[in-house]
Amino acid sequence: MIRRLCIVGVGLIGGSLARALKAAGAVAEVVGYGRDPAQLQLAQELGVIDRGETDIAAALLGAEVVLVAVPVGAMEGVLRAMAPHLAADTIVTDVGSTKGSVVAAAQRAFGAVPARFVPGHPIAGTEQSGVAASFAELYHKRRVILTPLAHTAAAAVATVRALWQAAGAEVVEMEVRHHDEVLAATSHLPHVLAYTLVDTLARMEEHTEIFRYAAGGFRDFTRIASSDPRMWHDICLANRDAILKVMDSYAADLAAVRDAIERGDGAALLSIFGRAKQARDEFKQ
Amino acid sequence: MIRRLCIVGVGLIGGSLARALKAAGAVAEVVGYGRDPAQLQLAQELGVIDRGETDIAAALLGAEVVLVAVPVGAMEGVLRAMAPHLAADTIVTDVGSTKGSVVAAAQRAFGAVPARFVPGHPIAGTEQSGVAASFAELYHKRRVILTPLAHTAAAAVATVRALWQAAGAEVVEMEVRHHDEVLAATSHLPHVLAYTLVDTLARMEEHTEIFRYAAGGFRDFTRIASSDPRMWHDICLANRDAILKVMDSYAADLAAVRDAIERGDGAALLSIFGRAKQARDEFKQ
Repeated sequence: MIRRLCIVGVGLIGGSLARALKAAGAVAEVVGYGRDPAQLQLAQELGVIDRGETDIAAALLGAEVVLVAVPVGAMEGVLRAMAPHLAADTIVTDVGSTKGSVVAAAQRAFGAVPARFVPGHPIAGTEQSGVAASFAELYHKRRVILTPLAHTAAAAVATVRALWQAAGAEVVEMEVRHHDEVLAATSHLPHVLAYTLVDTLARMEEHTEIFRYAAGGFRDFTRIASSDPRMWHDICLANRDAILKVMDSYAADLAAVRDAIERGDGAALLSIFGRAKQARDEFKQ
Repeated sequence: MIRRLCIVGVGLIGGSLARALKAAGAVAEVVGYGRDPAQLQLAQELGVIDRGETDIAAALLGAEVVLVAVPVGAMEGVLRAMAPHLAADTIVTDVGSTKGSVVAAAQRAFGAVPARFVPGHPIAGTEQSGVAASFAELYHKRRVILTPLAHTAAAAVATVRALWQAAGAEVVEMEVRHHDEVLAATSHLPHVLAYTLVDTLARMEEHTEIFRYAAGGFRDFTRIASSDPRMWHDICLANRDAILKVMDSYAADLAAVRDAIERGDGAALLSIFGRAKQARDEFKQ
């Protein structure tokens, strides 16, 4: 049982964890920090937090664990603001979608990454955002990746692991760089592709008609283009190198498919589409 | 009420229409044509067809309407086989995802596109295929596009329109070329992008791990990569020009996003992602 959890940024991700831990009886008190009193008020009315604070020192006071759940672009500023007010034994973890950038931000904010700082990333979310969209089951059976550094305290990792497990998640550990490469492939690239597709079509002359004749496949394919643009702008800038690498692989493969279509190379198309179907069908299971 | 409907190719698409028309009492008898007696037997056992024929002349005999529901790559061969056995007053329609190629196939198969041939395309389907996946509600509130030519008989169009309406669909008319451009954008391009993405990732060294950390967004985004590879191979070859055109627009836009990421141009990313989110949110409504 965590005595006092402070959630910095009470949105979909932080709010859902608070709900899950409360439902599981795994936390005694949840304090929410944010800049907008109205949002904190809403979070309190929804029962997500017990108390809201717009002053970071007051928010951190007496917290056993702090969950930083802000967009990765806001991470460094938030960590800098937290630094002077953190007790020596307070465990800090985050939920940023990119881990290299968060570790670098922590290094700059604290001088060195503290041993009690456990970088983390829950592989869960919806295209919604905000505390009103939060729900206790968001992490149920989802994976949470922790990327501790060599000097990260084992006890801090164990506490953060137990916290996510109490929310129903399966926790795994991974190196920072490896996390960023894997997520660039499975999450960041798909978002970039979906945003670009919807924008390409929206800028066509007959765009109203185009969307009118889109069916279920298109709806699923482009759902992630409804995600928060600022969050994904942050992620693209924060995980630039890994994203560029996988984008370049993808663009080369797409150019090869294009050329196969142009020269009417049915065998090449059948081979690519067939391999993809097989991989996707295996993934389903 | 159609007295006798012949379905050439009893799979998801043809089978679902047969089920819907039977449920609506809009057809007296459904005859299925196919090359595989086991599949026809299955279709009959499922109650999708009343009778199966592996001989095209026997299948077409006495049919008031013939629905050709075969992959677009098989269309010309099937129409050629049908041509000698079609009564002068039999209405023929199809469900091909590309209409320019089907009209060209009909022209070659019949010498000229018959006035009673009504090119059509139901904007419905799943990533499944085969008669076992068929269901009566597939076309409920979905759009069906008919692309009659200038000389197509109005009575034939009216019959085909009524048939789809009886299955619960909303029927619209469009020019052949316009259909092919719109569908290239909303359906063919997304399938090519999804197939390519899954193949790109599947060929990476750490592909098992990559798929392990893929979440819900990836699942939705790549669902269409489970579609039948041969069907989509056919579509890519049949609608080549329109697909290449929209692929080239997309590749240029993707390259611009890549460059914005590389040079850290947050304003450009925010503008593109924001426009896309707005368009996608409007589409949802």
